Amino acid sequence: MRTIAIIGMGLIGASLGMALRSADEEQAVLGPTVIVGYDRDPSATARARGRLAIDRQARTLAEALHEADLVVVAVPPLAARELFSQMAPLLPHGAVVTDTISTKVEVLAWAHELLPRTVDFVGGHPMAGKEQSGAEAADRDLLRGAVYCLTPDAQPAALQLVEAMVRQAGAKPYYLDALEHDSFVAGVSHLPFLLSAALVEVTSNSSSWREMSPLAATGFHDLTRLASGDPAMHRDICLTNADALIRWVDATSEWLATLREQLSTRDAEALGAMFEHARQEREQWLLARPNQRPGEGEFVNPTGVQPERRNIFSFGGGRRKK
Amino acid sequence: MRTIAIIGMGLIGASLGMALRSADEEQAVLGPTVIVGYDRDPSATARARGRLAIDRQARTLAEALHEADLVVVAVPPLAARELFSQMAPLLPHGAVVTDTISTKVEVLAWAHELLPRTVDFVGGHPMAGKEQSGAEAADRDLLRGAVYCLTPDAQPAALQLVEAMVRQAGAKPYYLDALEHDSFVAGVSHLPFLLSAALVEVTSNSSSWREMSPLAATGFHDLTRLASGDPAMHRDICLTNADALIRWVDATSEWLATLREQLSTRDAEALGAMFEHARQEREQWLLARPNQRPGEGEFVNPTGVQPERRNIFSFGGGRRKK
Repeated sequence: MRTIAIIGMGLIGASLGMALRSADEEQAVLGPTVIVGYDRDPSATARARGRLAIDRQARTLAEALHEADLVVVAVPPLAARELFSQMAPLLPHGAVVTDTISTKVEVLAWAHELLPRTVDFVGGHPMAGKEQSGAEAADRDLLRGAVYCLTPDAQPAALQLVEAMVRQAGAKPYYLDALEHDSFVAGVSHLPFLLSAALVEVTSNSSSWREMSPLAATGFHDLTRLASGDPAMHRDICLTNADALIRWVDATSEWLATLREQLSTRDAEALGAMFEHARQEREQWLLARPNQRPGEGEFVNPTGVQPERRNIFSFGGGRRKK
Repeated sequence: MRTIAIIGMGLIGASLGMALRSADEEQAVLGPTVIVGYDRDPSATARARGRLAIDRQARTLAEALHEADLVVVAVPPLAARELFSQMAPLLPHGAVVTDTISTKVEVLAWAHELLPRTVDFVGGHPMAGKEQSGAEAADRDLLRGAVYCLTPDAQPAALQLVEAMVRQAGAKPYYLDALEHDSFVAGVSHLPFLLSAALVEVTSNSSSWREMSPLAATGFHDLTRLASGDPAMHRDICLTNADALIRWVDATSEWLATLREQLSTRDAEALGAMFEHARQEREQWLLARPNQRPGEGEFVNPTGVQPERRNIFSFGGGRRKK
């Protein structure tokens, strides 16, 4: 019997527990497991138990960890550092620790600095979420078919265990190093949040907002969806991934400056070409995307991968063949 | 029997026809009508007929207009000017002309300049759409519950007729003047498109896009939805509403500059407060919104309305009481 401890009973922690517990026979690659949940807010742990996200509630961090083979840290970015310090003396020898945090460079540095050498750490980040937060918003299908980033810098046995957990949750392992991860997710995940917040802020701060807001329809609704996300989590993401985000903010500001010039000169050709290009790029992304999320556990093979990382992809056997 | 001519069998023209034809008894305030459709592309008219959006296909503009009581111009912004010139000699005395175009100041100026004094013009703009275009994407429920902007500068009988059409289509008349309209929709409708295109452009133009794109998930999907919209229509919107858009682009650039400063100084407090504010403003908008789109034809009463426009709101009797 394997024990998995999930620390943090928020949206992701509880959704992961639900997915692992409800995996069908073919998916249940971890074998018999018991899932222990812990949150520093006992009511969150109780809610997760009520939603069948965990088998057992731990009242203390020590109780959660003392028999754990695999520990999943599912807390907001800035909470991880202190949590690692608290966990360090409590972790069993040989345990594997992973996390679900949206940024990886700082989290890996904290793990390296604070966790004992007797455990292995594998950075993780499932590319899934929704604007609601907390165990009450958890969904056993949230991770199904989602790309799940893992950092490859760990012992093979540790990678194998975390990867098995990812597969059992119905998600797809995608290895990439922490620096790349942070730069990429800044573009495709954090920048979308910032632009969503920007739209809410610039419109709602306008003196005309009260008269204007009834005109806002489905487009405004969809573009602002991410702005309803947890402010503290997004603040922490900004603080732990600031440099990558600044580069994307600068690229966006440059694009807006070009757009402004085209608007002020009424440059029909340039505007039309730019919007046509944007439409084509999105269509291509949409076409490629279903291949990456068929839900049948295919390994996602990034293009442009460096040769020295190929051995990671073939680790574990059969992953690329299916 | 009233004849309504819809000129332009794209998404909006065909959806409007479908909505008018499928209105139930209570909604059918126009009485018996025949809906004639025309598009300069005859195959578009045929597709609209196939989708039951119109009662009759007109082969020429003259055929479409010669018995029309109400003419709805549902073409891209820049096509309207030439179309008005072509329509001018063909319009029956006393006909009412309206449009569905996303910008109003220039369209009203063209109507004033080009249409004969023997017809009345009411500017219109339904706040509804989707990323697909053409009659094949038309949906009889697209306009249902949507706010439908009308410019109040016309004869009461003309306003009454256009307003009846809006109600029969299941949408909600919302009067505001053309200049306000263009400024407001630039913020809540056109700016969202531009930010959506910006996100696609800055990410897909990155040298890392091929490795990064598989990480893009539901957030990226939703934020880029509008970027799949018709490039020619959005180019025309930019060209007919450039000044209002420049003001919103400038506000966004300023917001991004502030954000950049907060990122570079790791200003946790300011970032957290800003994201909290954005979340609250969106929640308030979401809470207010259902009142405005219950689908039962309530009149939308904008706040901050100027006293001299109140008589417009009470025009027609019973609209505010329901």
